[in-house]
Amino acid sequence: MEEKNFSMLCDFYEFTMSNGYFKNGFYKQNVYFDVFFRKVPDNGGFAIAAGLEQVIDYIKNLRFEDSDIEFLRSKRIFDEDFLSYLKDFKFTGDIYAVPEGTPVFPNEPIMTVKAPAIEAQLIETFVLLTFNHQTLIATKANRIVRSAQGRAVIEFGSRRAQGVSGAVDGARAAYIGGCVGTACTLTDKLYGVPAGGTMAHSWIQMFDSEYDAFKAYCELYPDNPTLLVDTYNTLKSGVPNAIKVFKEVLVPKGKTEFSIRLDSGDISYLSKKARKMLDDAGLQNCKITASNALDEYLIRDLMMQGAKVDTFGVGERLITSSSSPVFGGVYKLVAVENEGGEVVPKIKVSENTAKITNPHFKKVYRYYDNESGKALADELCVYDEVVDSSKPHTIFDSNATWKTKTLTDFTAKELLVPIFKKGKCVYESPSIQEIAQYCKAQIELLWDEVKRFENPHTYYVDLSKKLYEIKNILLNVYGV
Amino acid sequence: MEEKNFSMLCDFYEFTMSNGYFKNGFYKQNVYFDVFFRKVPDNGGFAIAAGLEQVIDYIKNLRFEDSDIEFLRSKRIFDEDFLSYLKDFKFTGDIYAVPEGTPVFPNEPIMTVKAPAIEAQLIETFVLLTFNHQTLIATKANRIVRSAQGRAVIEFGSRRAQGVSGAVDGARAAYIGGCVGTACTLTDKLYGVPAGGTMAHSWIQMFDSEYDAFKAYCELYPDNPTLLVDTYNTLKSGVPNAIKVFKEVLVPKGKTEFSIRLDSGDISYLSKKARKMLDDAGLQNCKITASNALDEYLIRDLMMQGAKVDTFGVGERLITSSSSPVFGGVYKLVAVENEGGEVVPKIKVSENTAKITNPHFKKVYRYYDNESGKALADELCVYDEVVDSSKPHTIFDSNATWKTKTLTDFTAKELLVPIFKKGKCVYESPSIQEIAQYCKAQIELLWDEVKRFENPHTYYVDLSKKLYEIKNILLNVYGV
Repeated sequence: MEEKNFSMLCDFYEFTMSNGYFKNGFYKQNVYFDVFFRKVPDNGGFAIAAGLEQVIDYIKNLRFEDSDIEFLRSKRIFDEDFLSYLKDFKFTGDIYAVPEGTPVFPNEPIMTVKAPAIEAQLIETFVLLTFNHQTLIATKANRIVRSAQGRAVIEFGSRRAQGVSGAVDGARAAYIGGCVGTACTLTDKLYGVPAGGTMAHSWIQMFDSEYDAFKAYCELYPDNPTLLVDTYNTLKSGVPNAIKVFKEVLVPKGKTEFSIRLDSGDISYLSKKARKMLDDAGLQNCKITASNALDEYLIRDLMMQGAKVDTFGVGERLITSSSSPVFGGVYKLVAVENEGGEVVPKIKVSENTAKITNPHFKKVYRYYDNESGKALADELCVYDEVVDSSKPHTIFDSNATWKTKTLTDFTAKELLVPIFKKGKCVYESPSIQEIAQYCKAQIELLWDEVKRFENPHTYYVDLSKKLYEIKNILLNVYGV
Repeated sequence: MEEKNFSMLCDFYEFTMSNGYFKNGFYKQNVYFDVFFRKVPDNGGFAIAAGLEQVIDYIKNLRFEDSDIEFLRSKRIFDEDFLSYLKDFKFTGDIYAVPEGTPVFPNEPIMTVKAPAIEAQLIETFVLLTFNHQTLIATKANRIVRSAQGRAVIEFGSRRAQGVSGAVDGARAAYIGGCVGTACTLTDKLYGVPAGGTMAHSWIQMFDSEYDAFKAYCELYPDNPTLLVDTYNTLKSGVPNAIKVFKEVLVPKGKTEFSIRLDSGDISYLSKKARKMLDDAGLQNCKITASNALDEYLIRDLMMQGAKVDTFGVGERLITSSSSPVFGGVYKLVAVENEGGEVVPKIKVSENTAKITNPHFKKVYRYYDNESGKALADELCVYDEVVDSSKPHTIFDSNATWKTKTLTDFTAKELLVPIFKKGKCVYESPSIQEIAQYCKAQIELLWDEVKRFENPHTYYVDLSKKLYEIKNILLNVYGV
């Protein structure tokens, strides 16, 4: 990757359309696009929004270099006036988004862009790919962290990631989702996610014996070393050598923090055997780390079987979300501003009912029960609606309108917050630690039923009466 | 991604080990590492090697900046002498690799690194992630291209890719695997992969009617436009409006190249109906493009059903290789040089037999039958062995040693070619078009049985007698 500026990381049709908007006089017309998704990966109950900070950086740096303009000119389909326009291009619109770490649900906007048509169009690809990627990984990491029931989970999948940013930004997203650290050094340097790591099999192979390799390591790093015990034979060689070295090198120095790592074989069986060997040797404080093709399904089973693991190292299945590797966020036109400045809602119908969009410039309320503190439902409202939580508020399921619920003792919180106003960033990004803490706290506010891995309860995402009526009118007009 | 130099994109344990090698005097000792994989994604018969050019760029730019050294110092575990060593760090070793686009098989080296221990260790993460990512996508793209039986396949998954390089480098790999183009503009600018694209649903929604939107587009881009026909209703509205506009705007100008794109609904049904409508209107030359969650399995079925599709646009399932999203390439120590400069083979045993490595500094021969031209088998040999193809040559299956085959009228080709010698790049990367052509030609040389999607024939990757004997001696020494 030679580029710092990702303005050209853009589907080519954004340029053909933008050139057309330019020629057809739409380029000053304000339009509204929503980012939303239709399905949670792994059939989960919710996703964790992530990637906003990288979207903000991208928007701030958005510009077309001379070499970009030259490249586009070489295609011989773009108007010279349009290319001149791109030369001075910058983003001048408004962006609203949910803060990173927020649990989000299908069919609600997690970002809304209001901008002149060309600007809104040209940012589509980068915005989607960044949200889709980081939200995918934060969501997967959170599932894995929940399966470990309080044991630490460390991300170490860089080598199996789908490219450089798959590794670096993926490790950032994994931390938002609840991992305690990463093996990726660059993610620590760039984003402050703590990186750690000790040894590979090659370290052991470099020495004349496993014992020599362990001894050299503990002498060099007496503070909390982790010895990899499966290079030759875990129980016959690795664990006995580790015990010997811990007792010879670390115990005499008064060190109490050290671990072994199991990286192959049956982790349930080996961890129990290794635990007993360590305990019998008086090393009850020695921790056990396990790795090797783990994910939430295997960790859940290992926990059920009483595996003696203190820390899980999770690689390829986390960093690629391998059981569900696509996050299907979309970017859809929901409104345009007419010449009088009025917001005109737009809808995209589809032969596939699930693909029909929720029209209009919207706000999203999340309602919390004041007694339990738990999140009860989200409601999509037209941008100018205001919900007064001091009065009872009735919501209804737009797919089954007879199902209503009246909220009384509740708090209403708007999910979308201003990020850019007239092209200027008005949002201060929290630290990565703050985002991770916020995420953890927000997930506490979801009912356990929504967090189930299999067949979770569907959290309510309703439409306000006003929005529901507008949608129905548009469906009657545009439905063919 | 703020960084151009990816030296810090490195698992943290590479630094702890390297610091240890430095302290233990191993840092000048030459070691040999192999990159290889154990399993083809999607249970396929072969993979397509890709990513070498990005590995070369990385090695050339490898250096640690002051801010990197400062970051490592802040961890308070690294020796100052080691940090000084990193300041002047550069790669001084040799690298051999198979050219990009080569079909490769499990358990054979696709790259071998000979370098002082620290240098070989520090490049592990980046080398693996780059090979793993691009090889994964090139392999997947090739499956999809083969399923389309000669119809063109275009990559357009950027928005669902796993991060920036997932999109940009993924589109490069897809082209190596046989796609004819991409939607990703940056991949065109950086790598010369042709990018194209026409319109999204938002284009149609911006106009008062679908007809107006199509008309404006064809007037602006009369050369080979593609109209997206599913915004409202494909057969009742989209196709009739497209026909009307083609006849009103393009046919009178003598234009004969134009297409429609189906992006939802049942592609088999809709393409046959649309084909008939177009033909009945005299537009036999109008092509049909189809997209929407396609992969090799669905395309194979669509082809069997006689779907009338000329071009397939493939997105998320290609750019993430969603049915098999991890390529499991590993980087294993296979030999060390002792003080006398002798190459000493090393092995990693494992409780899992499939994870036992092939030791030693090796060369890989691919044998072609002179009569059919087809590839017969690969053979891993010790680095100093030479196969004379003018004499009969007997190979055997190392898992079933009684299975032998004597080659007579054959050609032997070495797969690994020199890339770096003493830190200097000695390889001239072919153009991306040359790589794609080479890939296509090499796949022609594989038997159809190896190319089957389900249960393909296992291509032979054998060990020479000499290597087989060395491996057995090491297994007897290190097997516990």
